[in-house]
Amino acid sequence: MNVACIGAGLVGSSWASVFARAGHIVSVFDIASSEATDRALTTIRATLVLLEDNGFLTEDIPQIMARIKVAETLEQVVGDADYVQESVREDLLVKQNLYAQLEPLITPTCVLGSSTSALKGSEFFNALKSPNRALVVHPVNPPALIPLVELCPTEWTDPDVLQQVESLMLELAMKPIIVRKEIDGFILNRLQYTLVAEAMHLIGEGYCTADDIDRVMTDGLALRWASIGPFQVAHLNAAGGFKGFVDQLGPMMKSMGALARTDYDWDSKLADQVHEQMSAHVPIEAIPARQAWRDAQILKTRQQQKAAKKPN
Amino acid sequence: MNVACIGAGLVGSSWASVFARAGHIVSVFDIASSEATDRALTTIRATLVLLEDNGFLTEDIPQIMARIKVAETLEQVVGDADYVQESVREDLLVKQNLYAQLEPLITPTCVLGSSTSALKGSEFFNALKSPNRALVVHPVNPPALIPLVELCPTEWTDPDVLQQVESLMLELAMKPIIVRKEIDGFILNRLQYTLVAEAMHLIGEGYCTADDIDRVMTDGLALRWASIGPFQVAHLNAAGGFKGFVDQLGPMMKSMGALARTDYDWDSKLADQVHEQMSAHVPIEAIPARQAWRDAQILKTRQQQKAAKKPN
Repeated sequence: MNVACIGAGLVGSSWASVFARAGHIVSVFDIASSEATDRALTTIRATLVLLEDNGFLTEDIPQIMARIKVAETLEQVVGDADYVQESVREDLLVKQNLYAQLEPLITPTCVLGSSTSALKGSEFFNALKSPNRALVVHPVNPPALIPLVELCPTEWTDPDVLQQVESLMLELAMKPIIVRKEIDGFILNRLQYTLVAEAMHLIGEGYCTADDIDRVMTDGLALRWASIGPFQVAHLNAAGGFKGFVDQLGPMMKSMGALARTDYDWDSKLADQVHEQMSAHVPIEAIPARQAWRDAQILKTRQQQKAAKKPN
Repeated sequence: MNVACIGAGLVGSSWASVFARAGHIVSVFDIASSEATDRALTTIRATLVLLEDNGFLTEDIPQIMARIKVAETLEQVVGDADYVQESVREDLLVKQNLYAQLEPLITPTCVLGSSTSALKGSEFFNALKSPNRALVVHPVNPPALIPLVELCPTEWTDPDVLQQVESLMLELAMKPIIVRKEIDGFILNRLQYTLVAEAMHLIGEGYCTADDIDRVMTDGLALRWASIGPFQVAHLNAAGGFKGFVDQLGPMMKSMGALARTDYDWDSKLADQVHEQMSAHVPIEAIPARQAWRDAQILKTRQQQKAAKKPN
């Protein structure tokens, strides 16, 4: 397949490595400059080295890199594309203009996927005369390391196109879920920031520190969540499964939800306080080394998930 | 140290193994029956086998078991106790009665820790004439596998006693956080059920399935959270650290929190629907095998955390 990656920032570069690794021919384009695409190639190479070091590659890096080429124009990047992954700036007008420009350049069977995390697809796919072959394909950053991807069709998206993209993602070893109706933030960011919002409330009102929240996660909740999600956690916590769990703890579940103050109006003073706490562990200048450590940890957790044999 | 474990259900038994493993003499008592304590010894032995299999023991199991004895009466269990870990039923009257009965039986320096997850300490420690040596010591279930423990003093708790229990927990290789003011559900369950509440809203309104939520966790969020908590995740996601992150994404964070519907009023029909989805993966009869798998996975994730060398 011929894949076009438009926008060669961190998300776009990471996507390029995902497609190339799976054997596709990838064309990369960034409106900014040829420096941006040069930087992208460096990022892609570094990602592939990390994947290789952790046993995630079955081919040599030069073989994979050979499938990635840089395009000079929009026309060139999408000319023969079967699939476009758009990862440009999260700006409504930028995206609308891009899709309007793209439409006359692509083949009639080309499918358009947008990496947007902040916008709904229908807000900018309306710039297309035929929005039926477009949908949101929202990765977690970076997609080369984290396999979850949220597919969110608009009301105009052909069911066939959705199915086609789901198959493509599975073939790329990504883990797609389908968001059945458009919603702000899709699923992952809603869950993440709902938890963070209640955490900001707990810190802001002096119950605990940001550091305590992080330890509740790494030394507590995530020890289960790395293997099973919150609903299977509940299902396994009662002899009668999820129903039995709700019979026992339904009122507690509801009361925690009702008491949560996710609309807590934190200010920059509280954000500064959290920043100080985080900087005590990881000073600003140590962030790049710690990012590299985090990325390796992500792959190690995935290796452990893969190695885990489930009981029959 | 002499430790008394009162209540020998799953939580109490697990606590007994934690104290015995760290070298303390443990006395176990359950009001229910001698069968309950016999069952507890079986549970403790099984826990120790699991810990041994995963490299978490430095002593032979019989040596550890030799430090655990069964008491026949309340008087006997707390007679020479330096520390009491109470894990009886989550019932206000049961706890109040127990603490009133306990007070005349303990030494003046004995410290009382309650495993309660559903009640605030001040609601039942008020049965004590001297509540200054009592606090909540809330584990995640089971404490032998998951190290996080929430220490929640009441307004009556001596600061020295809190510090003493914090040191004890660290010595047990537990990971204590201090909840600085009493709050319903403490920190871990508030975070967990706030996320689950928004998830119930997303499932109930047809955006996704319970299965999708679980996959968003295991294939997405938890790949980071197994190594770093949500605030360090944010700190590492911007060149400027947490402050830089808030400058870029603060409005999105706030809007996700404001849009969350954690007070969503789900009914038994929705709970049944989730139950069916969970049972499709893990039928009720497969729950025990899957629990054993989950417990081993928890320890494997901890081993990976321990093995991970952080950059300087």
